[in-house]
Amino acid sequence: MFLTRTEYDRGVNTFSPEGRLFQVEYAIEAIKLGSTAIGLKTKEGVVLAVEKRITSPLLPSSVEKIMEIDDHIGCAMSGLIADARTLVEHARVETQNHRFSYGEPMTVESTTQALCDLALRFGEGDEESMSRPFGVSLLIAGHDENGPSLYYTDPSGTFWQCNAKAIGSGSEGADSSLQEQYNKDLTLKEAETIALSILKQVMEEKVTPNNVDIAKVAPTYHLYSPSEVEQVISRL
Amino acid sequence: MFLTRTEYDRGVNTFSPEGRLFQVEYAIEAIKLGSTAIGLKTKEGVVLAVEKRITSPLLPSSVEKIMEIDDHIGCAMSGLIADARTLVEHARVETQNHRFSYGEPMTVESTTQALCDLALRFGEGDEESMSRPFGVSLLIAGHDENGPSLYYTDPSGTFWQCNAKAIGSGSEGADSSLQEQYNKDLTLKEAETIALSILKQVMEEKVTPNNVDIAKVAPTYHLYSPSEVEQVISRL
Amino acid sequence: MFLTRTEYDRGVNTFSPEGRLFQVEYAIEAIKLGSTAIGLKTKEGVVLAVEKRITSPLLPSSVEKIMEIDDHIGCAMSGLIADARTLVEHARVETQNHRFSYGEPMTVESTTQALCDLALRFGEGDEESMSRPFGVSLLIAGHDENGPSLYYTDPSGTFWQCNAKAIGSGSEGADSSLQEQYNKDLTLKEAETIALSILKQVMEEKVTPNNVDIAKVAPTYHLYSPSEVEQVISRL
Amino acid sequence: MFLTRTEYDRGVNTFSPEGRLFQVEYAIEAIKLGSTAIGLKTKEGVVLAVEKRITSPLLPSSVEKIMEIDDHIGCAMSGLIADARTLVEHARVETQNHRFSYGEPMTVESTTQALCDLALRFGEGDEESMSRPFGVSLLIAGHDENGPSLYYTDPSGTFWQCNAKAIGSGSEGADSSLQEQYNKDLTLKEAETIALSILKQVMEEKVTPNNVDIAKVAPTYHLYSPSEVEQVISRL
Amino acid sequence: MFLTRTEYDRGVNTFSPEGRLFQVEYAIEAIKLGSTAIGLKTKEGVVLAVEKRITSPLLPSSVEKIMEIDDHIGCAMSGLIADARTLVEHARVETQNHRFSYGEPMTVESTTQALCDLALRFGEGDEESMSRPFGVSLLIAGHDENGPSLYYTDPSGTFWQCNAKAIGSGSEGADSSLQEQYNKDLTLKEAETIALSILKQVMEEKVTPNNVDIAKVAPTYHLYSPSEVEQVISRL
Amino acid sequence: MFLTRTEYDRGVNTFSPEGRLFQVEYAIEAIKLGSTAIGLKTKEGVVLAVEKRITSPLLPSSVEKIMEIDDHIGCAMSGLIADARTLVEHARVETQNHRFSYGEPMTVESTTQALCDLALRFGEGDEESMSRPFGVSLLIAGHDENGPSLYYTDPSGTFWQCNAKAIGSGSEGADSSLQEQYNKDLTLKEAETIALSILKQVMEEKVTPNNVDIAKVAPTYHLYSPSEVEQVISRL
Amino acid sequence: MFLTRTEYDRGVNTFSPEGRLFQVEYAIEAIKLGSTAIGLKTKEGVVLAVEKRITSPLLPSSVEKIMEIDDHIGCAMSGLIADARTLVEHARVETQNHRFSYGEPMTVESTTQALCDLALRFGEGDEESMSRPFGVSLLIAGHDENGPSLYYTDPSGTFWQCNAKAIGSGSEGADSSLQEQYNKDLTLKEAETIALSILKQVMEEKVTPNNVDIAKVAPTYHLYSPSEVEQVISRL
Repeated sequence: MFLTRTEYDRGVNTFSPEGRLFQVEYAIEAIKLGSTAIGLKTKEGVVLAVEKRITSPLLPSSVEKIMEIDDHIGCAMSGLIADARTLVEHARVETQNHRFSYGEPMTVESTTQALCDLALRFGEGDEESMSRPFGVSLLIAGHDENGPSLYYTDPSGTFWQCNAKAIGSGSEGADSSLQEQYNKDLTLKEAETIALSILKQVMEEKVTPNNVDIAKVAPTYHLYSPSEVEQVISRL
Repeated sequence: MFLTRTEYDRGVNTFSPEGRLFQVEYAIEAIKLGSTAIGLKTKEGVVLAVEKRITSPLLPSSVEKIMEIDDHIGCAMSGLIADARTLVEHARVETQNHRFSYGEPMTVESTTQALCDLALRFGEGDEESMSRPFGVSLLIAGHDENGPSLYYTDPSGTFWQCNAKAIGSGSEGADSSLQEQYNKDLTLKEAETIALSILKQVMEEKVTPNNVDIAKVAPTYHLYSPSEVEQVISRL
Repeated sequence: MFLTRTEYDRGVNTFSPEGRLFQVEYAIEAIKLGSTAIGLKTKEGVVLAVEKRITSPLLPSSVEKIMEIDDHIGCAMSGLIADARTLVEHARVETQNHRFSYGEPMTVESTTQALCDLALRFGEGDEESMSRPFGVSLLIAGHDENGPSLYYTDPSGTFWQCNAKAIGSGSEGADSSLQEQYNKDLTLKEAETIALSILKQVMEEKVTPNNVDIAKVAPTYHLYSPSEVEQVISRL
Repeated sequence: MFLTRTEYDRGVNTFSPEGRLFQVEYAIEAIKLGSTAIGLKTKEGVVLAVEKRITSPLLPSSVEKIMEIDDHIGCAMSGLIADARTLVEHARVETQNHRFSYGEPMTVESTTQALCDLALRFGEGDEESMSRPFGVSLLIAGHDENGPSLYYTDPSGTFWQCNAKAIGSGSEGADSSLQEQYNKDLTLKEAETIALSILKQVMEEKVTPNNVDIAKVAPTYHLYSPSEVEQVISRL
Repeated sequence: MFLTRTEYDRGVNTFSPEGRLFQVEYAIEAIKLGSTAIGLKTKEGVVLAVEKRITSPLLPSSVEKIMEIDDHIGCAMSGLIADARTLVEHARVETQNHRFSYGEPMTVESTTQALCDLALRFGEGDEESMSRPFGVSLLIAGHDENGPSLYYTDPSGTFWQCNAKAIGSGSEGADSSLQEQYNKDLTLKEAETIALSILKQVMEEKVTPNNVDIAKVAPTYHLYSPSEVEQVISRL
Repeated sequence: MFLTRTEYDRGVNTFSPEGRLFQVEYAIEAIKLGSTAIGLKTKEGVVLAVEKRITSPLLPSSVEKIMEIDDHIGCAMSGLIADARTLVEHARVETQNHRFSYGEPMTVESTTQALCDLALRFGEGDEESMSRPFGVSLLIAGHDENGPSLYYTDPSGTFWQCNAKAIGSGSEGADSSLQEQYNKDLTLKEAETIALSILKQVMEEKVTPNNVDIAKVAPTYHLYSPSEVEQVISRL
Repeated sequence: MFLTRTEYDRGVNTFSPEGRLFQVEYAIEAIKLGSTAIGLKTKEGVVLAVEKRITSPLLPSSVEKIMEIDDHIGCAMSGLIADARTLVEHARVETQNHRFSYGEPMTVESTTQALCDLALRFGEGDEESMSRPFGVSLLIAGHDENGPSLYYTDPSGTFWQCNAKAIGSGSEGADSSLQEQYNKDLTLKEAETIALSILKQVMEEKVTPNNVDIAKVAPTYHLYSPSEVEQVISRL
């Protein structure tokens, strides 16, 4: 009698006989239910674009899905937004402490590492860690002494450096489109257009300044105003 | 043999194979059993109205379902009232501390965030957190430097900014009515009338100053006296 | 395979799929096995009356079921008496601390709130809290700057302000009788008679100074002596 | 599929659907296996008598089942003797602390209350409390400013004041006999005779100074010597 | 469906429905597998004798099964020897502390009580206590102001004063023999002979100085040398 | 009814009846899914080479799989990269502390031991330890007063000193090739070529500077630049 | 329905109905899988010899299986080597502390006792203890004021003094050979030859300086160099 995989996920951080960590895999499922987010790195800076799901005309600004971490770092998220807020808040404290201690901004990689350290330690009973994996993926865009950079994190606490990446329910189709359209010599303006045109494909409704958010780090974080978003839409 | 969803909710804060957090979903069920509450934002301020369930003529004032958080913030609730009290008490301490530390009122969004941080951390064994989700939804009405605002929170610790929202057992019908009747140019007086007329539809008995409560934040919190409620009723 | 409700109550403070907290519901069952207690609020003060179950002539004074909290507050209980003692002892410390810190008596509502805060936090591992709900309901009678007041608490940590209320095994019938006989203009003397006549109906034996206790808060707590009880009996 | 009652007792301090605490009920079963003990209150003082089970002539003094708590308080026990010793030791410390702090003996009721507070908190993880209920019942005999008094405690932490009471395996028959023979005007000497004659009925062997212990609190604790026990036996 | 007794022993310190503590009963089983030990009290002092199981000629001195606690107290053990060492070490610290604090030896009963207090608290998470019962029985021989004394302890933390007692796998037969041969007027020399002759009966091999240990407390602890043991053997 | 092995792995650190620790065995399975890494010790220094799995052209630098611990120590890893980072970070702190305290570099064996001490203590609830085994194997290359050395660690916290070793999904074939081609008199340059040629066999695609990393410790840690990797590739 | 023994081992330190501790028994199974180690005590000192399993020519020195504890104490091990290292490290600290506090070496028995105290306390949640038994047996060789001595420890925390002993997978055959060949008048040189000739019988390959280790304590610890091992081999 070999027990099924569902028997293993009750200890939140325990290997299955095949060497798998099911709670992490289930958290990744939670992200597949999330709204789509896209990031593109160019030489001029990094662009982030997210779909905002408007469930009702009475909830106009909905939930923030792009957030500033520091002047030179921002992130887009997909999955459980309340979990993402905890990670972002942790990263904000880390970057502020770094500025205070060393008198210079934290590098984008160190910030990503600090964020993933917290994500890795789920189920450990530490003060800041959660009893389950954080159910969220992040696209972290930044600009430091090494120029622009884009990182992708998942619930296991692993991170990858990337040129372009999509996360959330439409990520599979969006990643294919990115591979076709991305090249290293894109201008920031071209990246904006690509990001929004791909987002448009995966969303089932018309793109408006109300249902997407765009931000860039070039070299500082800037969240686009409705009229700036309108300009990008007009170029599609 | 694939176990059913009921196998997963015993670890209070654990993902199911589909990436769901069942305890949060079950807590949301608890709110569907609660009495109806309605909030509307106008340019002049925010109106809150709640149904009071009178189980017996011997329990005249029943349980308070609209509470003041600070001079400029109030909230209406639906679900487990004892849970709501813990959240409100936490928010009161936070706003008082903020006034003491910074000499100015806490913004409505920061207050909502502080409240949701506590709600998110259920099952973590912290001093203030609960071992289960807080079984309550809140409508948080406030007025700060950005003018009037209305927030809606759920047991997952997520919050949404909104123009108008209903919670509790009659929320589905009430939300439809709100979408029909709400527009941004309502006066506070019109909002009072709309809130009470919608509440009247979902309640199964005659509306009286005994079985509804109304409050406004415009720009400070005020709970209506029975005669003020009577005036609104007379306008229906 | 849908598991039955009995599968959910093993985590002491966990929601069922329907949004219910079974341990609280089971604790309420414990109270339905308890002896009956009745409270009535009049303009002159509040009357409490309880049934004393005499299991043997050799246990004359049996267990105390009406207790003083402070000069101006008393309570009647039904359910697990040892649990009630812990709550009352907690309330006594709170009211004494309040007198010491502020030089004035604690209000009846604040005292009730303090008591319910402790009741709500069962299963949280705090120093004073229990690992299960407190299996007791209280009728808290008091007199403060707002005049006489009567509160009813249940194991969930919720409380209601009321004019008249019965708890325990005979509460259903007693509540019906109270609704028929109660009005706001009762004198204290009339309230005594009503309380005892209703208690007589639900008890299966003759009422004597040995098997009932009566107390009033008008405006201070007073437990009736056997001869005072005899006087009330003689008026039936 | 409704689970049986045995499913509920594994959480040591959890309500069953009927509102019962099974671990407490099971602990009460442990006492039904214990040796019989009897207490009688007279105006002159309180008498305690216990059966000593002699399992072998090589264990002459067997286990102590009547113990002194303070000069003016003693107790007889039935159930798990090692548990009783912990409770008695706790009471001894409390009465000594009271004498030291207030310069006067602790009342019998306060001593009983302190003992029951410890018994109630089983399963709470406190320093002094047990992880299970204390499997012992006590008859606490004392003499204070209110004269002689006798208390009966059970594993739930509840206590009753009583005139006469039997505990242990023979308690049912002994309680019936006590109800027939007890009256308030008994002399201490008559109480001794009644206690021993009832004990004789429930024991299956001849009563000797070796297999019973007698003590009185009149007004101070005194454990009878073998010759004093012999005198009582001779009066039967 | 009534669960079997084996369902109850998993909570280490939990009552079964019949009021039994199974882990204690199972620990007592562990002792029934242990080597036999015998103690006899005489007016001149106490004799202890134990069987040493020699599993191989290469393990000459085997495990110590008689240990000194203090000058005036020694003990023989049966069961898990590593558990016994923890208890003895605890008793040694207690007797040393008592000598240091009060300038006089600890009584034999107080020492036994201290040892049993530790044994009772298994499963409580204290610093010194075990997570399971101590799987060992002790015969504690001592001499204090009350003359010689012998105590018998079991895994429940209960102790009995006795004149003569056998523990371990051969205890049943040995106890019968002790009841036949023991009387209070034995000399120490006669007690040595009786102890060894009974031990010889229950052992399945020839008694030699290699496979038995003898000690006395008369009035101080003394472990017999091989030649002293040879002398006792020669008297059989 | 004999339970299957899957019943044993739920206590993370518990022996099965055959004396096995299943969580450790399952963690070893996790490594069998990892990318291949190879280490070779020569008299001139140690070479490390790893396969980098490129899942998308948009993730150019992928995840780091060779890391520096100290000037004189580096390591290659296979398995869960986030786990490896925690171990490496721990080793970095240990080596830095050693330099600070003793003014000299930590030996390679001591560093490996410190790392394995942390790995061994999984499931112990320590501050730094994990609740499950670390799902990673390391090849630790170093150079100290004893010359070059190479260590291999597994999830059980055991380590072996070795001349050459492969880990990860292709380790079986790679180890066979190493045994054929390895001898103690290899030059560092020959070792580079052997490492890469074996890696090429187990990888299913063309070897490029993009999909392998090479590092050496000879006597200090150096990670090869793309052009240096290209040079090694050109020698194949 | 009587549950099988496998139901009992999940509480790591819990008695089965027969009074057995299964986790300890399972740990002993782990040792039966270990490599063979042999110890012999002579008047001149103690000899230790162990089999080194060479799994690959690329792992030349393999894992250390004989370790120094202090100048005058060494030990050979069989079972989980990572567990043994923790015990040895603990013993090293204890012996160093003893030297520092008392200015003299710790006796071999005290060192063994300290080591077993740690082994006994598995499952207790102490800082140094493990959550499961230590899966290792040790042969502890030493020389102190009482001359040479040899101790054998098992996972239960029990220890035996012995003249000669084998542990590990070949222990059964090796113990028989030791009983035939051992006598108290062996010279150290004869003991070396016996140890290695017995080891040769249980190993399935040729004995070489690469696959055995030999050490002596006579009176100080000395691990044989390859050439010293070669000399002993040449005498076989």
